[in-house]
Amino acid sequence: MSSPERAPLHVPGELFLGEIHEQPRALLRLLEHDDDYARVAAVARERGRLVRFVGHGSSDNAATYGVYAFGLLARWTAVRDSIALSVYFDAAPEMSSSTVVALSQSGRTPDVVEYVRRARRGGAFTVALTNDVDSVLAREAEAVLPLAAGEERAVAATKTYTNQVAALALLAGHCGGSGARVAAGIRSVAGQLESALPALEAKTRELAAPFAFVGRMLVIGRGPEFATAREIALKLLETCKTAAWPLTATDLAHGPVAVLDPLFPVWAIASRDETLPAVQEAVARVREFGATIVASGDAAAAVEGADYVLPVPEPKLPILSPILSVVPGQLFAAALARAKGHDPDRPPGLSKVTLAR
Amino acid sequence: MSSPERAPLHVPGELFLGEIHEQPRALLRLLEHDDDYARVAAVARERGRLVRFVGHGSSDNAATYGVYAFGLLARWTAVRDSIALSVYFDAAPEMSSSTVVALSQSGRTPDVVEYVRRARRGGAFTVALTNDVDSVLAREAEAVLPLAAGEERAVAATKTYTNQVAALALLAGHCGGSGARVAAGIRSVAGQLESALPALEAKTRELAAPFAFVGRMLVIGRGPEFATAREIALKLLETCKTAAWPLTATDLAHGPVAVLDPLFPVWAIASRDETLPAVQEAVARVREFGATIVASGDAAAAVEGADYVLPVPEPKLPILSPILSVVPGQLFAAALARAKGHDPDRPPGLSKVTLAR
Repeated sequence: MSSPERAPLHVPGELFLGEIHEQPRALLRLLEHDDDYARVAAVARERGRLVRFVGHGSSDNAATYGVYAFGLLARWTAVRDSIALSVYFDAAPEMSSSTVVALSQSGRTPDVVEYVRRARRGGAFTVALTNDVDSVLAREAEAVLPLAAGEERAVAATKTYTNQVAALALLAGHCGGSGARVAAGIRSVAGQLESALPALEAKTRELAAPFAFVGRMLVIGRGPEFATAREIALKLLETCKTAAWPLTATDLAHGPVAVLDPLFPVWAIASRDETLPAVQEAVARVREFGATIVASGDAAAAVEGADYVLPVPEPKLPILSPILSVVPGQLFAAALARAKGHDPDRPPGLSKVTLAR
Repeated sequence: MSSPERAPLHVPGELFLGEIHEQPRALLRLLEHDDDYARVAAVARERGRLVRFVGHGSSDNAATYGVYAFGLLARWTAVRDSIALSVYFDAAPEMSSSTVVALSQSGRTPDVVEYVRRARRGGAFTVALTNDVDSVLAREAEAVLPLAAGEERAVAATKTYTNQVAALALLAGHCGGSGARVAAGIRSVAGQLESALPALEAKTRELAAPFAFVGRMLVIGRGPEFATAREIALKLLETCKTAAWPLTATDLAHGPVAVLDPLFPVWAIASRDETLPAVQEAVARVREFGATIVASGDAAAAVEGADYVLPVPEPKLPILSPILSVVPGQLFAAALARAKGHDPDRPPGLSKVTLAR
């Protein structure tokens, strides 16, 4: 018997998939705040050319991207800073010529908030990049940049991550004097993603069946796409309980290649940039060990011997390719979680706001 | 029929174990070069307070330690720099106030050499930290610091890694004005290690039998001991084909904890420093998932509910604990490799000098 009070039936994965599909619109919402990004960049430029990122989980993966965005678009040094040094050891270095960008979806991650408090006291220009512009993180930082991804309800982040990547590109663009070009690039990527989603979803659903019994995987990328490798591996861990681990294409050769076998698939992210030859060489080594290979990214077709190919559109600005190349991984995680009988919206043992230190 | 020309019989693991046992002497050899470290530190101090490390594999793990050594002993900002940005994208930032420390056992890693070449052109003070002071890396760098570990013959690094850790502590100590204290600390650690080795070897050999069928593991640490977590995981990957992955105690809560079960053991490195509570909390979460727990480090006994405990001596200087805490992992890798029928001296598919990019 139904009643008006009854909670609507939950379809496993509907939140997660819904938020994956919302990503093109979320990217356009971010662009509405372009002026804020330009203003914050102007202050950062006064400070110097050193950016420190802090964040955990997907936010830290986005920070990996930020290192390359600031390196390539602004020639600045950007680092994923140690939270432990500041917060646990009380040993923060002098920061008066640093800009801190603190990434937290909720704006409530305790040690990120504490890092910002100390960095601000230590002279840094502190910026909160968050969905919640009224959060404690936003209050503690000197400036707030709206992530504008909108409320994220699935435990595993998707639209928050892609908006973080776009936001860091936009900020780096403004710092390096190419903000308008990056904003136009993001707008164009939003359109490319919208068009590509239906075919990608169908393809990743097919791929899920043969992977239902895979217990462990590697995900490799290089340069900006190492961020994508980290994020895809985290999605598979969170939503599918697949022990998936990210590696740079180079690090693969330092040991991990030795554990590969036909039951240990490797997902390679190949984009058309200066690191493509390194990724191709790494895949060639993987092939020697007989591992199954999935290739994604806008240069997926250039990966020889891949068993499965999941190409995405090539963006006008190569630095924006990680916004597109992460999506096959998100969709695959959604499909694989269902194939394994998990609910990707509510992975057992995880919560949306991690309070762990 | 034997002949004088016949190669001596190889006992699997003899090189690897021999080099593990040589570590106390290797540490003392490093200290003979203390003056070189003091001299290089004096030049680095003139440049500024930013250090950039580059290296792959174990060398990159040592660099993770270096971030904390420079942070805690000198209050400098130290980063594991992106090789890809400089070498593949030709987008190195301005480096005139940076010191570069390039870590390579052989001094022949191609992209590390190329990074140094470009960093030197870009104004950085470049330092090669290598076993081979006549190598191409040593020639390209402005200054050379002898690692003095002596020829390493096993493919998996041991004495090179611990000497790299000690070398970075010594350099950071001289940069921060406490070089003599750090040198004395290393001397004392060498003695503690020498005394601890026999009992540790016996204990890790016992532990190997129940782990022979383990296919995947996590290794967690925090702060300086995250370097140890990375290095122990790499040893297990290289020599035992165990899919072992390092995580900070904090990152564990962001997804990976969800994949744990009783067949997925967790190795926790617990040292008596400011991060110990974070490690203890992470282990408490691991226990909820029923995973088997190995605790090592000088605070191993303070980890509640550990199934196996491998304590090491507590050094006088807490920042030196990673030199001691990695050794149970090395010895365990040696014992486990033998239990699984592998030769830890010559892991299949790996070579001593990695030329991969």
